Amino acid sequence: MSKLVSSIQEAIEKSGLKSGMCISFHHHLRGGDYVLNMVMQAIADMGIRDLTVNASSLFDCHMPLMDHIRNGVVTGLETDYVSGGIGRELSAGILPKPVVFRTHGLRPSDIATGKSHIDVAFLAAPTSDEMGNCTGKCGPSACGSLGYAMADAMYADKTVIITDNLVPYPLEKQSITEDYVDYVVKVDSIGDPKGIVSGTTRMPKDPVALRIAAYAAKAIEASGLLKDGFSFQTGAGGASLAAASYLKDIMLKKGIKGSFALGGITGYLVEMMESGCFEYLQDVQCFDLKAVDSINRDPRHIEISALHYAGPTAKSTAAQALDVVVLGATQMDVNFNVNVHTNSSGYIMGGSGGHTDVAACAKMTMIVAPLSRARMSLVVDRVNCISTPGSSVDVLVTQYGVTVNPARTDLLERFKEWKLPVYDIHELKEIADGLNGMPDPNPNRGDRVVAEVLDRDGSILDRIYQVL
Amino acid sequence: MSKLVSSIQEAIEKSGLKSGMCISFHHHLRGGDYVLNMVMQAIADMGIRDLTVNASSLFDCHMPLMDHIRNGVVTGLETDYVSGGIGRELSAGILPKPVVFRTHGLRPSDIATGKSHIDVAFLAAPTSDEMGNCTGKCGPSACGSLGYAMADAMYADKTVIITDNLVPYPLEKQSITEDYVDYVVKVDSIGDPKGIVSGTTRMPKDPVALRIAAYAAKAIEASGLLKDGFSFQTGAGGASLAAASYLKDIMLKKGIKGSFALGGITGYLVEMMESGCFEYLQDVQCFDLKAVDSINRDPRHIEISALHYAGPTAKSTAAQALDVVVLGATQMDVNFNVNVHTNSSGYIMGGSGGHTDVAACAKMTMIVAPLSRARMSLVVDRVNCISTPGSSVDVLVTQYGVTVNPARTDLLERFKEWKLPVYDIHELKEIADGLNGMPDPNPNRGDRVVAEVLDRDGSILDRIYQVL
Repeated sequence: MSKLVSSIQEAIEKSGLKSGMCISFHHHLRGGDYVLNMVMQAIADMGIRDLTVNASSLFDCHMPLMDHIRNGVVTGLETDYVSGGIGRELSAGILPKPVVFRTHGLRPSDIATGKSHIDVAFLAAPTSDEMGNCTGKCGPSACGSLGYAMADAMYADKTVIITDNLVPYPLEKQSITEDYVDYVVKVDSIGDPKGIVSGTTRMPKDPVALRIAAYAAKAIEASGLLKDGFSFQTGAGGASLAAASYLKDIMLKKGIKGSFALGGITGYLVEMMESGCFEYLQDVQCFDLKAVDSINRDPRHIEISALHYAGPTAKSTAAQALDVVVLGATQMDVNFNVNVHTNSSGYIMGGSGGHTDVAACAKMTMIVAPLSRARMSLVVDRVNCISTPGSSVDVLVTQYGVTVNPARTDLLERFKEWKLPVYDIHELKEIADGLNGMPDPNPNRGDRVVAEVLDRDGSILDRIYQVL
Repeated sequence: MSKLVSSIQEAIEKSGLKSGMCISFHHHLRGGDYVLNMVMQAIADMGIRDLTVNASSLFDCHMPLMDHIRNGVVTGLETDYVSGGIGRELSAGILPKPVVFRTHGLRPSDIATGKSHIDVAFLAAPTSDEMGNCTGKCGPSACGSLGYAMADAMYADKTVIITDNLVPYPLEKQSITEDYVDYVVKVDSIGDPKGIVSGTTRMPKDPVALRIAAYAAKAIEASGLLKDGFSFQTGAGGASLAAASYLKDIMLKKGIKGSFALGGITGYLVEMMESGCFEYLQDVQCFDLKAVDSINRDPRHIEISALHYAGPTAKSTAAQALDVVVLGATQMDVNFNVNVHTNSSGYIMGGSGGHTDVAACAKMTMIVAPLSRARMSLVVDRVNCISTPGSSVDVLVTQYGVTVNPARTDLLERFKEWKLPVYDIHELKEIADGLNGMPDPNPNRGDRVVAEVLDRDGSILDRIYQVL
């Protein structure tokens, strides 16, 4: 008995996929992923139509999916994040139904509870045996953690593993186990390693980003949370990475031994663990080659599922153990609501990912962003899209200093004690308006809803409208 | 936020446990387990009654459970195996309803599909953090794999982890993860290490056992299955262990590189891996200290869940990849049906455990047993209880030689070629009857059904009757 089938087409046939069903993909191969396009082309060639695609994220390498939408092969889209090229098409309204945006935590919760039913999951696996025990930790297309693929594997009616590195049974590192896998397909290549390992982890030289990072690190120090046992998450954006770098200096200087760093893991966080800043990394997704190498060899670098990371239906999550998270924003409004779904022109160019989840969970949620970008103000009266509610956001750090959610008087006092420059959110908005002029909110907004953004409880948090 | 509660009683209260519900336990602490008795005593003290206990196995250290049955605290029992002292009480009929016997594979399948609903799982964990990430690999009461506890943790409405070794969050080796855990209780000790690590793995000196083992090893060699990539499971009984020892000699001499050994893992299988006979161990349960030590330090020693091991609803299992399994029997009949539930007097003193599962899956299922024990014949017209159907059993090996299921003419020919002494099952029965006299089947059998034995598909395979 083997689950090996000779082609993606054969796997599709055997899976029983029919028009009208829902299929899923994960995004661990990021901008280098070949699998989604290969599977969708085979499906289109077979004449299957009217599918819903549930992909944990979509990148511009997935632009061929837009043609499948135009041709009616795909009529529903559910995702947690899309990159700019895809977003522009979705904002133009190519899909008849609204896109459903979830968070990285809500997605596995909805899959596990059956609210989001997946008929067939097509899961890229950098290494697999012929029974479907598989991992992302090694292989020519290694991507590290498979955290976002685990719920799909466990709860889809049929699970197809697609690999370019078939190894003898049993695979030693079993991130997904055979008891959940129906078919295994060997292909020449599941992805382009250069695209899998994105270049997002370069440290910035931009003086504005460095200034923001310095304020952010000082604010973390001032918060009282930076002590032995400290836990931390940050993104791979420039200011976030630079903030981690300043934080590292403080931790090493003061001899602070943190507990863990969480999330999408970068090589920089690996360095912090290796230099003693953290005991462990809890990794739902690897952002770069150094992270991939680390999770493959260092048992302190722990692979976790998306449910374990931040699922709202989980009994508890790693996110709930977070002290501080540093996140980005495209817009923020005077009520501290954050937009990471659309740009200031209203075009979709992102998504929550884990933003909303960890913001809701961490003891201190800090947004780092320059006050304006390309003459567009960060701070507005009302964000074009609420991605993360203001009630989850504690601090905004810009190049001017810190701005504190009025609900966090405790932090305000600490920051003043530490002589950090403190600005009221309205003051900050005035400064930004003075620099950029009053922005026209949603300049080309149409009337049709092109996307619904779900909050962590599954309710609709906001709607995104067509851009005309 | 922490899930730590101050006592087992507090965990029971918070879990919402009420009379009439179903609770579960795992058996990885084997004869040394303190947890089941502690929990049951607390439950009894709280006045909760009419519970169903689903325990993956019960040992004689759990005799206090019999009093809870007599007192009406427990009115239903579901398990995969019970030791002799418990079995004698159950055979006497102390429980009003029949005991439900499952296999080690069916149990997690029924739990996962909801056929066997667990309200509260009480799971002993040799090491845990305060959020319930836990493992059996280390700690003063280390037991190795937690394979039989995983389905309980994932599917029980409430999961309580009981540990005597609380470590800082996050635990590195996460066999069960926090997303499934509701409460954590720290107690002084979860078990007696001497009882956890049973003495079953001593190599026998008994010449009958050694003779059986020698025939078994030769039959495996003759089967054609012993080649590179060979996979193997055996129990911890004397003849099984000795067979593994002879097999090891053959494999080393011939330079055969096996793939994996599976199952309850003994130190002897660890030695076989370390000496190059197998690449990997797939471990659902550790039988001795050497196995516990190995799973804690050697990544080739892979912990697997009971569903992954042998669940009939799994997409595939490790058991299905088995070439040869060597198993024991208390009785075997002329149709090759095997009894491992009762002794020849009809008293319950065992259970399938994984016997039925691996017998159904392996390419060659071999039973090793002496032709008579204490003047009772192994081979009978009809076993007192069918634990494993004859259709799953290929070969019986006794001190007289090999006996082949008539369906396996291929094996019969091979064994003859290899000049193994071959006996028909009826011939063997005649020899046994000549030695022991014709046994009285079920001498003291009453009319009341005290246990139902479920087959892997959930149907009733056989019934066990009260012993008067």
